[in-house]
Amino acid sequence: MQTTNFKNVPFCWPQGFKSDGLHSGLKKTADQLDLGWLCSAVPAQAAGMYTTNRFCAAPTALTKKLVSTNHQLQAIVMNSVIANSCTGSKGEENVRYEQKLVAQKLGITPELIGVASTGLIGAQLPMEKISSGIAQLQLTTNLNVTKAILTTDTHSKKISLQFTIGQKLCTISGFAKGSGMIAPNMATMLGFITTDAAIAPQALQSLLSKLTDKTFNQITVDGDTSTNDMVLVLANGLAGNPTLTPNSPDWSTFEAALHQVLAFLARQIAGDGEGATKLLEVNVAHAATEMEGQQTAKAIVGSNLVKAAFFGADPNWGRIISTLGMTHAQFDPQQIDLSFNNFQILTASQLQAFNSEKLISSLQQNKIKIDLDLHAGTATGQAWGCDLTYDYVKINATYSS
Amino acid sequence: MQTTNFKNVPFCWPQGFKSDGLHSGLKKTADQLDLGWLCSAVPAQAAGMYTTNRFCAAPTALTKKLVSTNHQLQAIVMNSVIANSCTGSKGEENVRYEQKLVAQKLGITPELIGVASTGLIGAQLPMEKISSGIAQLQLTTNLNVTKAILTTDTHSKKISLQFTIGQKLCTISGFAKGSGMIAPNMATMLGFITTDAAIAPQALQSLLSKLTDKTFNQITVDGDTSTNDMVLVLANGLAGNPTLTPNSPDWSTFEAALHQVLAFLARQIAGDGEGATKLLEVNVAHAATEMEGQQTAKAIVGSNLVKAAFFGADPNWGRIISTLGMTHAQFDPQQIDLSFNNFQILTASQLQAFNSEKLISSLQQNKIKIDLDLHAGTATGQAWGCDLTYDYVKINATYSS
Repeated sequence: MQTTNFKNVPFCWPQGFKSDGLHSGLKKTADQLDLGWLCSAVPAQAAGMYTTNRFCAAPTALTKKLVSTNHQLQAIVMNSVIANSCTGSKGEENVRYEQKLVAQKLGITPELIGVASTGLIGAQLPMEKISSGIAQLQLTTNLNVTKAILTTDTHSKKISLQFTIGQKLCTISGFAKGSGMIAPNMATMLGFITTDAAIAPQALQSLLSKLTDKTFNQITVDGDTSTNDMVLVLANGLAGNPTLTPNSPDWSTFEAALHQVLAFLARQIAGDGEGATKLLEVNVAHAATEMEGQQTAKAIVGSNLVKAAFFGADPNWGRIISTLGMTHAQFDPQQIDLSFNNFQILTASQLQAFNSEKLISSLQQNKIKIDLDLHAGTATGQAWGCDLTYDYVKINATYSS
Repeated sequence: MQTTNFKNVPFCWPQGFKSDGLHSGLKKTADQLDLGWLCSAVPAQAAGMYTTNRFCAAPTALTKKLVSTNHQLQAIVMNSVIANSCTGSKGEENVRYEQKLVAQKLGITPELIGVASTGLIGAQLPMEKISSGIAQLQLTTNLNVTKAILTTDTHSKKISLQFTIGQKLCTISGFAKGSGMIAPNMATMLGFITTDAAIAPQALQSLLSKLTDKTFNQITVDGDTSTNDMVLVLANGLAGNPTLTPNSPDWSTFEAALHQVLAFLARQIAGDGEGATKLLEVNVAHAATEMEGQQTAKAIVGSNLVKAAFFGADPNWGRIISTLGMTHAQFDPQQIDLSFNNFQILTASQLQAFNSEKLISSLQQNKIKIDLDLHAGTATGQAWGCDLTYDYVKINATYSS
């Protein structure tokens, strides 16, 4: 990944973006934020990726329709705790009411307001709490909204990068939440990226789609794809740069920056999966095709047996091989190289001598890197996930009751 | 399923079958059986289903080759603890040596000896222990072999049925083991069915293949398919019935009996999945095609989130709907009926009134039945699994070390 043309900066909102977050009464205690918004001073070019689950939640369906029709948004209102999914016509009515309240408050048309929800499927939103919460939202520079969208996440996930395009300083900032029902198949649970760079809308959508396949679509916590998955990019152009298209000399800078933001948030979601103690990263080398590399990496990081073994710092390499054997990737079973945290386990499928104590001690760290070489071509694949722990079971055994 | 033409009887070996099991030193304590065999007085017609994992274990590969070439076996030697998978040419040599030892002991050709192993992938068999164990095996009527193949299973799984064909009493007996790395895709970990009925070999193979798709291939414990999966049926013909073919008047009796044996063992494996406290059964009604019904049932029973919710007796129906939404089955999202243990949850996708306390109390039992009606056709599907528990994580966090 290209990293020379942009720099990491402390999280900040790009020019013209304001936000807020507060406790509206959805979460139990007053210090827990559950409702927020993100607003641009002017309509922003918008691109999005959405769940492929056929029970698409009401807010996700409405926002998808808006963005794919108008390619513009000026504000997004968002809440946690209740997903407003499988809620029928009442659920759709509630989304349109949220849209209307925000539009009235900002004095703009409802068609510029996106809505995002995450939480329990099948429950209706308590609209009195939502209404009075929206009435209290302000246009601030605080970071409350990055906390208001969290459910079982243990921390907020956010990143800002800056770069120069046509001598104009541009900022790109992203935030996201996980952390269960994570096996994105177009986008992850909720991710929001803002930038003040000017970019042509179709080019933005194509780039988001391409990069999502390498980032959010390559993480898995539990193999379950939510009904509310959504990633949105809002580009309001206030940096004043010449509008970017794939032919611009600085296109590669913007592409690298957006890739970095998406990859960072994807890794953060994987590492903060429900109950997780460790981030797992699988790198597949020399796959026959990119798709085979990507699918193999994701299959390994998604295996319950692999995940449970790494929770126990158990170098049970047979489970990686067994998972590889179930994929459709091309390889010669006699030619597999495998390493854990740079300890060589297999070379040409032969077990290598390694210091077992040192290996196990390395597997007790909070990041485990699995490198697999298929010797079948020139493509690569990468995926991220987390270990399977007692706390995953605990969190999910009593989620709704 | 037809049940009138056969009856359940206490477990017994069909005519001409003998077996034994003992402690050879693979498991830690002397009371734990780990090596056994199953022998027929005469060569038996044999049919098998095997793992689709491309890292097929050495014993599985050899047995598959034998059965598909000769359609006959007279004995099977089996062990737990070590899977003899990913063990290279040394592993293949060890399988042939096991075969030779058994052949010498029985005074028959090695081509009539099958080998089955289950346990840790990547370790070599300790051949001195195996050799001295084989030397001690006897031809008995005890049931030790049903215990010798167990790994993390908590109990042995076995069933015997009797029926009459052409006025001859026939017996069919099956035993199997689970209980992790269970997502069979041709057969389950290890299952052995013996019968003294005479049956044409090609007809036996076709019937086993058809029924495995409805039974062993419809269970999942953790979505991981082992390298050693194998189901074998041995039919030695000693009941003296006229050889069965699909045109025989009693064909349906044999088919129903074999189906009952396979379904019983599949349910037993699912309910005794690693760490499981509950058997989950999903029945899909009115699917557009049988494949869609089967795939939908298996997807639901395989969802970590569904499995964890039922461990906690949490009626989190949104997770079933979310899983359904990720399948490729045809349905109208507005027309779904759903019930748990006969408590109606959704009718035409509308949430129904139910006694929540009584429902939760019902979900605390050790069997949960999920009925899903897609209103999309006339086909059905059925699958079995288990809940996801702390003990699953515990068992799998330290399996190899």
